[in-house]
Amino acid sequence: MADRHASIEPVGEFARVDHDRAARQGMPEFVYAGHKTPEQVAAIMTRMVERQSYALASRATPDHAAAVASALPAACYDPTSGLITIGRMPSQTAGLAIVVAAGTSDLPVAEEAVGLLDFMGDRVERVYDVGVAGVHRLLAVTDRLAAADVLIVIAGMEGALPTVVGGLVDPPIIAVPTSVGYGASFGGLSALLGMLNSCAPGVTVVNIDNGLGAAAAAHRILRRSGLRLSEGNMPA
Amino acid sequence: MADRHASIEPVGEFARVDHDRAARQGMPEFVYAGHKTPEQVAAIMTRMVERQSYALASRATPDHAAAVASALPAACYDPTSGLITIGRMPSQTAGLAIVVAAGTSDLPVAEEAVGLLDFMGDRVERVYDVGVAGVHRLLAVTDRLAAADVLIVIAGMEGALPTVVGGLVDPPIIAVPTSVGYGASFGGLSALLGMLNSCAPGVTVVNIDNGLGAAAAAHRILRRSGLRLSEGNMPA
Amino acid sequence: MADRHASIEPVGEFARVDHDRAARQGMPEFVYAGHKTPEQVAAIMTRMVERQSYALASRATPDHAAAVASALPAACYDPTSGLITIGRMPSQTAGLAIVVAAGTSDLPVAEEAVGLLDFMGDRVERVYDVGVAGVHRLLAVTDRLAAADVLIVIAGMEGALPTVVGGLVDPPIIAVPTSVGYGASFGGLSALLGMLNSCAPGVTVVNIDNGLGAAAAAHRILRRSGLRLSEGNMPA
Amino acid sequence: MADRHASIEPVGEFARVDHDRAARQGMPEFVYAGHKTPEQVAAIMTRMVERQSYALASRATPDHAAAVASALPAACYDPTSGLITIGRMPSQTAGLAIVVAAGTSDLPVAEEAVGLLDFMGDRVERVYDVGVAGVHRLLAVTDRLAAADVLIVIAGMEGALPTVVGGLVDPPIIAVPTSVGYGASFGGLSALLGMLNSCAPGVTVVNIDNGLGAAAAAHRILRRSGLRLSEGNMPA
Amino acid sequence: MADRHASIEPVGEFARVDHDRAARQGMPEFVYAGHKTPEQVAAIMTRMVERQSYALASRATPDHAAAVASALPAACYDPTSGLITIGRMPSQTAGLAIVVAAGTSDLPVAEEAVGLLDFMGDRVERVYDVGVAGVHRLLAVTDRLAAADVLIVIAGMEGALPTVVGGLVDPPIIAVPTSVGYGASFGGLSALLGMLNSCAPGVTVVNIDNGLGAAAAAHRILRRSGLRLSEGNMPA
Amino acid sequence: MADRHASIEPVGEFARVDHDRAARQGMPEFVYAGHKTPEQVAAIMTRMVERQSYALASRATPDHAAAVASALPAACYDPTSGLITIGRMPSQTAGLAIVVAAGTSDLPVAEEAVGLLDFMGDRVERVYDVGVAGVHRLLAVTDRLAAADVLIVIAGMEGALPTVVGGLVDPPIIAVPTSVGYGASFGGLSALLGMLNSCAPGVTVVNIDNGLGAAAAAHRILRRSGLRLSEGNMPA
Amino acid sequence: MADRHASIEPVGEFARVDHDRAARQGMPEFVYAGHKTPEQVAAIMTRMVERQSYALASRATPDHAAAVASALPAACYDPTSGLITIGRMPSQTAGLAIVVAAGTSDLPVAEEAVGLLDFMGDRVERVYDVGVAGVHRLLAVTDRLAAADVLIVIAGMEGALPTVVGGLVDPPIIAVPTSVGYGASFGGLSALLGMLNSCAPGVTVVNIDNGLGAAAAAHRILRRSGLRLSEGNMPA
Amino acid sequence: MADRHASIEPVGEFARVDHDRAARQGMPEFVYAGHKTPEQVAAIMTRMVERQSYALASRATPDHAAAVASALPAACYDPTSGLITIGRMPSQTAGLAIVVAAGTSDLPVAEEAVGLLDFMGDRVERVYDVGVAGVHRLLAVTDRLAAADVLIVIAGMEGALPTVVGGLVDPPIIAVPTSVGYGASFGGLSALLGMLNSCAPGVTVVNIDNGLGAAAAAHRILRRSGLRLSEGNMPA
Repeated sequence: MADRHASIEPVGEFARVDHDRAARQGMPEFVYAGHKTPEQVAAIMTRMVERQSYALASRATPDHAAAVASALPAACYDPTSGLITIGRMPSQTAGLAIVVAAGTSDLPVAEEAVGLLDFMGDRVERVYDVGVAGVHRLLAVTDRLAAADVLIVIAGMEGALPTVVGGLVDPPIIAVPTSVGYGASFGGLSALLGMLNSCAPGVTVVNIDNGLGAAAAAHRILRRSGLRLSEGNMPA
Repeated sequence: MADRHASIEPVGEFARVDHDRAARQGMPEFVYAGHKTPEQVAAIMTRMVERQSYALASRATPDHAAAVASALPAACYDPTSGLITIGRMPSQTAGLAIVVAAGTSDLPVAEEAVGLLDFMGDRVERVYDVGVAGVHRLLAVTDRLAAADVLIVIAGMEGALPTVVGGLVDPPIIAVPTSVGYGASFGGLSALLGMLNSCAPGVTVVNIDNGLGAAAAAHRILRRSGLRLSEGNMPA
Repeated sequence: MADRHASIEPVGEFARVDHDRAARQGMPEFVYAGHKTPEQVAAIMTRMVERQSYALASRATPDHAAAVASALPAACYDPTSGLITIGRMPSQTAGLAIVVAAGTSDLPVAEEAVGLLDFMGDRVERVYDVGVAGVHRLLAVTDRLAAADVLIVIAGMEGALPTVVGGLVDPPIIAVPTSVGYGASFGGLSALLGMLNSCAPGVTVVNIDNGLGAAAAAHRILRRSGLRLSEGNMPA
Repeated sequence: MADRHASIEPVGEFARVDHDRAARQGMPEFVYAGHKTPEQVAAIMTRMVERQSYALASRATPDHAAAVASALPAACYDPTSGLITIGRMPSQTAGLAIVVAAGTSDLPVAEEAVGLLDFMGDRVERVYDVGVAGVHRLLAVTDRLAAADVLIVIAGMEGALPTVVGGLVDPPIIAVPTSVGYGASFGGLSALLGMLNSCAPGVTVVNIDNGLGAAAAAHRILRRSGLRLSEGNMPA
Repeated sequence: MADRHASIEPVGEFARVDHDRAARQGMPEFVYAGHKTPEQVAAIMTRMVERQSYALASRATPDHAAAVASALPAACYDPTSGLITIGRMPSQTAGLAIVVAAGTSDLPVAEEAVGLLDFMGDRVERVYDVGVAGVHRLLAVTDRLAAADVLIVIAGMEGALPTVVGGLVDPPIIAVPTSVGYGASFGGLSALLGMLNSCAPGVTVVNIDNGLGAAAAAHRILRRSGLRLSEGNMPA
Repeated sequence: MADRHASIEPVGEFARVDHDRAARQGMPEFVYAGHKTPEQVAAIMTRMVERQSYALASRATPDHAAAVASALPAACYDPTSGLITIGRMPSQTAGLAIVVAAGTSDLPVAEEAVGLLDFMGDRVERVYDVGVAGVHRLLAVTDRLAAADVLIVIAGMEGALPTVVGGLVDPPIIAVPTSVGYGASFGGLSALLGMLNSCAPGVTVVNIDNGLGAAAAAHRILRRSGLRLSEGNMPA
Repeated sequence: MADRHASIEPVGEFARVDHDRAARQGMPEFVYAGHKTPEQVAAIMTRMVERQSYALASRATPDHAAAVASALPAACYDPTSGLITIGRMPSQTAGLAIVVAAGTSDLPVAEEAVGLLDFMGDRVERVYDVGVAGVHRLLAVTDRLAAADVLIVIAGMEGALPTVVGGLVDPPIIAVPTSVGYGASFGGLSALLGMLNSCAPGVTVVNIDNGLGAAAAAHRILRRSGLRLSEGNMPA
Repeated sequence: MADRHASIEPVGEFARVDHDRAARQGMPEFVYAGHKTPEQVAAIMTRMVERQSYALASRATPDHAAAVASALPAACYDPTSGLITIGRMPSQTAGLAIVVAAGTSDLPVAEEAVGLLDFMGDRVERVYDVGVAGVHRLLAVTDRLAAADVLIVIAGMEGALPTVVGGLVDPPIIAVPTSVGYGASFGGLSALLGMLNSCAPGVTVVNIDNGLGAAAAAHRILRRSGLRLSEGNMPA
């Protein structure tokens, strides 16, 4: 176990980077920029890139992006998803993830999921604007959804989309409630409760607006599904 | 206004029957047995029948039913809906209400709605067990639903059924959340929030398990729709 | 069903316009601007107007309005209701909707309802500032309310207005809680719960501040009430 | 202050009776039987009666009543209000309290308030079954309500009655939400929130089903209102 | 009743001033500026002053104050309480109200109560910064509190002050929870619940931060207490 | 699509069995006995067995079990999990699911998951009583957990177990909160929130006590993982 | 670390006893009987007693007690606290804990704390029925409370007692909210929030009704306070 | 008691400084700047420093700091913790407090605790960024944590860190939930509930983000632990 402790490295006084996480969890530590200063984010990502050549931060504002870019010119920032990425993990999987979103307003969450899957080297496709109030739009893509190895299904308001998808096709379904809505949507609580109480069996749920978590869960599934790559391909 | 006050009649010390309600609201006062003793329910219904020949109590237990039956032998009790009825209102409407329920467990609420509509002389049909996890069951009855003058759509768990129905057809939709579910359904709160946040425009909602209220709302709509009967047919 | 799928048209990568919705639901798709960028709103409305000559967006800010106006000079923006409208649907109904509001502060929600009904070609009147703490103001308009085919009743704070109205007159009542209030009003939750628990039978409820949804529900009712227009008048 | 401490007297190991409370608060300590055993209630009331000749316990079941009756044969038990009383306080006030209740189901709470006021020697009258869904019943008693020195207004469901009363007349109003209702009434929370958000100024609220607390508050007001009795009449 | 209706006067399209309210409720209508525009507030206050020479608006910002001042130069604005006042009602009462506040942070709410009582011509005193964590500060003023005809007791955080005061003295107590606090104070909910569950009998509660409502309730009590003025003094 | 509709079969008036569900979702319809009568459960299972030779009901009481046993003597009832099973599905998967439970009190939920996986022919193992307050118990089984294709991790109280597991190993993790706890556990809400906010990326969550849903989700994953069986093995 | 794993011992299939916990946490594992069967509790306690001569179970019903007594005749059961104890830990501490309770109804929680401290060999005293509505009762015992090494302060309803105690004396304070109350006490939530928002600095809180947890926390403090015993006295 | 009252000193009209608090509670009054104006904070701190040479304000913004600095040039401001300090209390304790934080984002709360302990003269160390998703980081510091006299354990999101720490070591544990998180973390509620429901016995909890309260509680414990200083050292 001594090896593991050796791989934990302090960054200033405020963080310890856990370089073994990729080996244990199949993915490295990501930087949640939401509650950190631009300087903290830049310092942590710099330390990460020195060891493993790639890094990702989520919920980043343009200020975060600017601080990272001046330290790491190779950094890319996508304002829709709020992701800053440097490099990309070697691909470990062969299956297909599809990200399904109910409405235009759910795009930031959907793109966060797409962006992380892409960063981790997973194959991912988009199916957007297929809300349940127009169920024919959804029926038109049923066969395509059935062919996926994992589905990430994103919706706000009443959050019914994963239930309807779960009744139509058999891949694993990760439901993501979004804070899209107003009034009694209570910041996404309504969609969250709708997904937890889904009458379609086998729907699992992540936190409100948590596109990142959904992509991480999908990656865990993809690593077990379809043609698996050799252990030697695992990032270190 | 003196006439109106004259028509309010005390029952013992605990109630005042509002005999003008039918004229004002298009339906008489109903007796909510839930928080009343069997004796209170029997006394109130007796006074009502003396004036208008019909009466209805909801949320009645077998104990309520027995007390009413010994005072009013013509009373009928339906244990599924929990309704006690005596007689029936003269019919005022010509349109059609359809009661749609997601699952077998929603039957008590659905039958409460059906029973009240029937008591008020409205035309009503049932479409049961058409939950959204098997959306094909619902698509099979779309044309029938589209022909109704008002739809009462009942569901527990995630409460998505009214949203899907509202996306398929154009009649007025009264959604009824039920307390069917467990865990994070929170006694029907999840279904209630789902319905209030429906992404299908024009879905309205009543209280959890409130089949009675949904039927009353449907009756208000039916009185305005299709071929209207003459004012002279109104019950007094 | 192929016809239906053909009528779903992508707008950029972020939206699919559902042109058949008017046929299925009796009203077209509306654009909820709240979570969309000005550019997205302008693009979607432009595509809609190309097909059907009219379009409506809700919860629009002046920024949304400016973006739409430069693409579609015929667009009208009402800052009180937050509605952007282009053209107007052909009228399908003959009945009367009345929008009743408890206080001056409820105006934005009330005007959203009035604006949508007007856009859909429905006949609509206003009765404002008739809160229950001065019940005589309400009694003075009872006869007028009784003559409506549907009532939209809007209130914040304790949300008692629909209950009192529901006890006075018999038209269908759609209650709209508003977020007007403070402290334990919890952003409109108090009014919402008050309306759901109304002791007047037959009151239905929509989401907090959802004037649009109330108008859509009223339109569903008006299409079934009074003199109905021929099917040929329906917008496509 | 030594005198005050001397007047605190232990009862077994589980209670200390505060005999000076009447002097400080204008009313003695009452026994809340709800969470106590019959034996505890009987022991505490026995000790109280030894000092001051009267005592009252609330939320008492028949079991509590039986235990008290065998220790104190003069005890009276009213099953509707759940009050056990022994004797009666000397009257301290001359004003009038009126207890107003919305429906038959609110009787237990209303009678708890009436019973305590009567026990404390206050003048009290009842006005029951005047819910806001039939506002004419309420208008018929407006003049009577206006003549009271304090009003206790009790309602479940949406809890709108105190608001309407508060808009009609000027006495102090103590609103009591009850747990009457179901579904989204959440055990009286809906009525509580409705009353706290009342748009009629000057309505105050006590806990759900707390008839006792409302009567205690009314007693505090009555001691300050109308013709005040001499300090010498105060119970000790 | 025609007289009453005659006294309801429209202001633009957005308000109806209820000039009879003072006669019915013992105080005139106040203007809640919180959800109104500066122009609306100025228009409504102008209309009020034309009829009764005095007017009051609450929750006013400096923008509201400026708009009113340019229409009504006699208007006074107090930024701590957020009150705009013009003139003052003729005094109707002789009793004493004391406003008790737990901490410095509760001042805005306390001053709103003081300001309204002063505007209505009631006698009012302040006792501030006597929180329960230093109970000796409170004991030092017990005799003064006992001499009041009504107490308004204001606290945030755990909201325990009214309970301790209610155990010490016998006047009527109106508790006002404030939104002072953070974390699990949930915007004043914690203080509100603490006050509703007070173990001191006879404590009544108003909405969070509702200094205005507390003063209105105190005014209702003062009108019934001590030496009452003749009916002829009542404002019209 | 006609084929699909043909396969929906009514049971009495209260249910429609969806025999195609196995083809669409990879598992048949299960009977949730919780809200159904013993007679309804027996009737539905009888109809199912006639078509597909196996059936499963969850949340069954001994009364449900007795009714089913008299109709279907081959039925097995496990009182710990509350499952009634008849026959078993042909196995479709080769991977391994491990059910991990924090404490003895979580057994009913864990056994519901184990029982359903076993019924569906999946390979499943148990690791029980490894709560985070004794993290060494968990570390002792880390290698075993890492070898699974999917983990179902069950905990009540603070719900921290899935987070710690998710930080140690890389398989997909389905977290199940249980209602084990008291006070501020709020019937499992605390564990549910803890799991949704897990700081370990890639943890997904199902409803409180929903062992069945977790097993269904695991089955969806197993069907995609490891050696996949031929489509011909799929149950019909 | 191998030693530690060796000391984890399975009990049947449903539990693993963690015999090293006393060394790590300063107290052994306790058995929470609340969600376990009588047979499970008896089996676990039997295994514990074989190793360490003492054991304790909480939230035990008479049925649990009977099952344990027939396996372990030396077991003692106290129905007020719900504790089953066998033997007693060797004393490790010299300081004094005082358990302070607001009312008679809080006794079960207070006695659970007293019973566990006594079982662990700690010195403990009781001060009961000193609620804040009679603050003089509390002031009378201030000096006694100031002399304690740790205070456990227990209250339901508004939960103000720990705040007032925390303002009077300086020992560490562990506040325990109880579910005593009704209506808006929401099963102890009100008291819990009151304690978390205490304006007295340094008050810490445990779960609702969690006398056991409070005693465990007090034990952790006592082990660090006053005269500490030698490490050799530690139980194994 | 006269002495005590003499030591309460008014500051302007808005505050009373309680100079005896240090004697009663072992620490002086702190200034919560959060809801106060810069001028109020400067005035109160000035008055405090005149009497006791040291003072501390929490939740201070740069504006607060500037106002204090111009009045009291010796004031220090730490923007991370939000503390303004002037001087330092004489040390009263000899034990060791360790502040443990789960992540970088929890720093402001952790530093508030560290800063107050330091101000009160207590010995304090930091262990940061040891979240439970990488439990090996935590195991690496177990021995160090076991040597503390009190642990303050800070975490957001699911709040599991105190539970895992509580299972590893035996010092008293004060858990601090933080508002770090998003979606269903509900501003720290999720972490708060997780900590209150900890399955590790003896964990106590303070309000969300309440680093100050945790340090005050730790100070109460340190005053009782290890080598205690003579009473003569107590600050006045």
